[in-house]
Amino acid sequence: MIRLHAVPGSRSFRVHWLLAEMGLEPEVENYRIGDGSLGTDDFHLVNPAGRVPALEIDGMTLIESGAIVEYLCETRSEHGLGRLPGDAERAEFLVWLHYAETVATCIQNLNLQQVFLPDPAMRSPTVIGLETRRLAKALKPVAKRVEAQDYLLASGFSAVDVMFGFGIEAAFHYVHAEKFPTLAAYQKRLAARPAYQTAFAAQGPDTIYKQDFYEVPVG
Amino acid sequence: MIRLHAVPGSRSFRVHWLLAEMGLEPEVENYRIGDGSLGTDDFHLVNPAGRVPALEIDGMTLIESGAIVEYLCETRSEHGLGRLPGDAERAEFLVWLHYAETVATCIQNLNLQQVFLPDPAMRSPTVIGLETRRLAKALKPVAKRVEAQDYLLASGFSAVDVMFGFGIEAAFHYVHAEKFPTLAAYQKRLAARPAYQTAFAAQGPDTIYKQDFYEVPVG
Repeated sequence: MIRLHAVPGSRSFRVHWLLAEMGLEPEVENYRIGDGSLGTDDFHLVNPAGRVPALEIDGMTLIESGAIVEYLCETRSEHGLGRLPGDAERAEFLVWLHYAETVATCIQNLNLQQVFLPDPAMRSPTVIGLETRRLAKALKPVAKRVEAQDYLLASGFSAVDVMFGFGIEAAFHYVHAEKFPTLAAYQKRLAARPAYQTAFAAQGPDTIYKQDFYEVPVG
Repeated sequence: MIRLHAVPGSRSFRVHWLLAEMGLEPEVENYRIGDGSLGTDDFHLVNPAGRVPALEIDGMTLIESGAIVEYLCETRSEHGLGRLPGDAERAEFLVWLHYAETVATCIQNLNLQQVFLPDPAMRSPTVIGLETRRLAKALKPVAKRVEAQDYLLASGFSAVDVMFGFGIEAAFHYVHAEKFPTLAAYQKRLAARPAYQTAFAAQGPDTIYKQDFYEVPVG
């Protein structure tokens, strides 16, 4: 049994998609940010930190999408989605894997400010402007990379694309896709993968974004 | 030659400390947040994303503290500071390694709001309150863990303590150490290590915090 605790549209999609690339189909338990479902005693037994994703697999419960992705690549190495210790691309694999979280953190901060704070007066236009600029800056090295090659690693598709492909889709709620044409094309390549589509359909409708695009408010 | 690009008091201390645990002494290039030193063309040649740490080692430049820590543990495995693929504690090692970033992200957001925004009117007491509660919540599983054992892994000191030990010190600028006695004792154990002290002395004075403690402002 593989059970994924998830919020549709969040980092948990990374795990869902990677499982699909491996031909694995998890049972999915969906939660929703802000409705208290991540704060119940039942969920705290799964993850005391009250965060998704959490993955029940191999008799354990793992948290943190980056850790789960590394674990799956190592324990299911036959799919060739990781670059394991000793591989010539190992250092790059690790850098991109962790760098995906730098991008995801900007998005998480913008989600908080632009989507989840119930009252616009609680928001800070300064912080939104700053995080939006940080996000655009953080995306640049990724955009440059996928201008020269189809995927982040020269050897081809890997789990770091799974870490990033998702984040880029979310990023385009805050930075205009037209300003990052190579990234937008990369995102389209990723979304065209059958496993992406399988996981995307299985995760259920996105419960995070209510608008296609969120402008920086005038401060 | 090993060269560490760093901001004293930031995540770069993790790398500095881990190198010291391995008996390695980097040349250190210090930067300062907010004075433009991370935005120069020279530094962008090192890291286009304009972030520290960056580590020049083995003929490459690596970024992202988590990636650098993983890389060092794998390529210098004789120090026993990692738990490599196949190790019984591998999954736990990965989870704590990435979870350290969940804690660090709360701290980074509080640093921005409480330390770096030049004008208090730019701050959001709502966001500060929320991130402070998030930080306290994220610290709880760590506090519980080091109540039962000296280090995060049952087998003893490892690189995940290096990832966390630093973050906990920073966390105590925002949550009261007295409320987390087991964490405070853990932090003292880590700070007593000779390599911690070597790296701490070598990094230069903290340029981030001007106060010992930052209260949540009344909103």
